[in-house]
Amino acid sequence: MELTLFNILDILGTIAFAISGALAAMDRRLDLFGIFIISFVTAIGGGTLRDTLIGNTPVTWMENTIYIYLIGVVTILAIVFRNKINYLKKSLFLFDTIGLGIFTITGVEIGIRNDLDPIICIALGAMTGTFGGAIRDILCNEIPVIFRKEIYATACLFGGLVFVIMHDLGVNQDIIYLTTSLIVISIRLLVVKYHISLPYFYIS
Amino acid sequence: MELTLFNILDILGTIAFAISGALAAMDRRLDLFGIFIISFVTAIGGGTLRDTLIGNTPVTWMENTIYIYLIGVVTILAIVFRNKINYLKKSLFLFDTIGLGIFTITGVEIGIRNDLDPIICIALGAMTGTFGGAIRDILCNEIPVIFRKEIYATACLFGGLVFVIMHDLGVNQDIIYLTTSLIVISIRLLVVKYHISLPYFYIS
Amino acid sequence: MELTLFNILDILGTIAFAISGALAAMDRRLDLFGIFIISFVTAIGGGTLRDTLIGNTPVTWMENTIYIYLIGVVTILAIVFRNKINYLKKSLFLFDTIGLGIFTITGVEIGIRNDLDPIICIALGAMTGTFGGAIRDILCNEIPVIFRKEIYATACLFGGLVFVIMHDLGVNQDIIYLTTSLIVISIRLLVVKYHISLPYFYIS
Repeated sequence: MELTLFNILDILGTIAFAISGALAAMDRRLDLFGIFIISFVTAIGGGTLRDTLIGNTPVTWMENTIYIYLIGVVTILAIVFRNKINYLKKSLFLFDTIGLGIFTITGVEIGIRNDLDPIICIALGAMTGTFGGAIRDILCNEIPVIFRKEIYATACLFGGLVFVIMHDLGVNQDIIYLTTSLIVISIRLLVVKYHISLPYFYIS
Repeated sequence: MELTLFNILDILGTIAFAISGALAAMDRRLDLFGIFIISFVTAIGGGTLRDTLIGNTPVTWMENTIYIYLIGVVTILAIVFRNKINYLKKSLFLFDTIGLGIFTITGVEIGIRNDLDPIICIALGAMTGTFGGAIRDILCNEIPVIFRKEIYATACLFGGLVFVIMHDLGVNQDIIYLTTSLIVISIRLLVVKYHISLPYFYIS
Repeated sequence: MELTLFNILDILGTIAFAISGALAAMDRRLDLFGIFIISFVTAIGGGTLRDTLIGNTPVTWMENTIYIYLIGVVTILAIVFRNKINYLKKSLFLFDTIGLGIFTITGVEIGIRNDLDPIICIALGAMTGTFGGAIRDILCNEIPVIFRKEIYATACLFGGLVFVIMHDLGVNQDIIYLTTSLIVISIRLLVVKYHISLPYFYIS
C-alpha cells in the first residue's frame, strides 16, 4: 500500500475508531474477545458498508491486511494504557470525532473515484463516517450517538458538501482533505460546546 | 430514467415508505436530521438489501439520484403537512401498506430479470417489501411490524407467489403488477380488520 | 450441486442452524411465519454476510435453491417434533454448536478459494460461523450468544487458525475439515462444561 495522504488519513481514522471501540467495550465490561470485536467493527464498519453498497468487493480490509493487524495492535495498546487514555476526559468522544471527520473525507473521495453523483458522494461520506460508531453503540446497548441531540451526522453532510464544491472548483486535493476533515471536527466540537441542536417537529 | 410502469410503481412505493418513515420519526420526536435519516432508510432499505444480495451494485439509489431528491422533497412535505397527514387516522399504517404492496412487486420483478428461481424471486419480493419498514421500526425502538400479530410478510409471500404464477402463464406485465400489489394490500387490510392471525406452536 | 464433502458439511450446518432458529422462535412464542423467518435467517445469515463482503453475488442460497427448500422442510419437521427435540436437554445449544463448527470450516474454505490472506480467511470463518446465531439472538431479543461469557467466537478463531496451518502444510482436505470442525465443537463444549472464560479489563 502506497503512503498517499488518502491512505494515511484512512489509517488515522481506523486507529481513532479502533480506540473509541475498545474504550466503549471496556466501559461495558466486555471480555477480551468482546473488546477486540467491538474495536474491529467500529473501525471497519463504515468502510465495509460503503464498499458493499458500491460493489467494491472483496471489501478494503479483506484486500489490505494492514487494517486487521493495525486494529489488533491498537486494541492491545488501548487495553494496556486504558487508564492513561481514559485520564484524558471525554477521550471516547474525542477519538470518535476524529474518526468521524477523517472517514467522511475517505467516503466522499471513494464516491468521486467511482464517478458517482455529488449528492451520492456526500451521502457516502456521511455513511462511512457514522456507521461504525452506530454499530458500536448498538452492540454496546447505547442509543446510537447518531440519534442523540448533537448535530452529529449533519457535520458530515456539511463537510461532504464543502468537499464536493471545492473538488468542483479544482482545489488541490490535500487542501480539500485537510479543510473538510477540520470542518467536520470543528462543527461537532462547537455544537457540543454550545449545545446547538436541530429543530424538532411535533405532530400536534 | 424512462417512465415505465415499473419505474412509476417504484417511485410511488418510495414516496409511501418515505412518508411512513417521516411520520414514525416525528412520532418518536427525533430532530430534523433524525426525520430525514429514518425517512431515507425506510424508503431505500428494502431495495438496497435486494440489490446488495444479488450484486446489483452500485445500488439503485446511487445510480439514479432521482430517489434521493424525491425522498428529500417528500420528507419536507411530510414535515410541513404533518398535522394534516396525521389527521387521516392510521395514515402511517396506510402508507406502510401501500409501500409494502408495491415494493413486493418490484422485488419479484428484479429477481425475474436476473433469471433467479421463482422461489428466490418470491423471497426477494418479501425482503424488498418488508426490510425498510423493519429497519424503521428497529431504529425507532418499536418491535418490528414484521413480528407483530398481523400476517404482514405473509401477504408479500402470497402476492409474490401469484406474481410468478401469472408470469409463468404469460399474463401481461401491467396486469400482473396491478393485480399482485392489490392482492398484497388487500390481504393486509383484511387481516388487520378481521384480526386474522397465523397459528402458534408452543413447546410443552 | 455435487455431493462433495464441502457441500455435505454446508448442508449439515444449514440443517443444524435451521433447527436452532426454529427452537428459539418457538421458545419466544412467535407465530408460524416468525418461526420460518428466524429459522431461515439463522441458517443463511453467516453465509450471506460472507458472500456479500467478498462479492460472491447473487449469494449462495439464491443460486442454489436446495437451501431454501431444505430449510423449509427442516423447519416443518422441527415444528412437528418440537417436543421430542426439546426433550433432549440443551438441544438448542447442541445444534448451535454443530452449526458453529461446520460453518467456521466453510467460511475459511471460501476465503482460501478466493485467494484471500490467511488472517482474512480466519476472520471469514468466524463471521460465517457466528453471524447467523447473532441475528437469531437479536431478533429474539436475547443478548447475542457471541457476547455471553462463553468463549464462543474464540473457538471459531482457533479452529480457523488450525485450518490455515494444516492447509499450508498440505494436509488432505477431508482431514482438515473433520479435524477443525471437531476442534471448534470440542472447545465450545469444554468451555461451557468447565466455565472457562476470557480475561476482562476494567477502566479504573
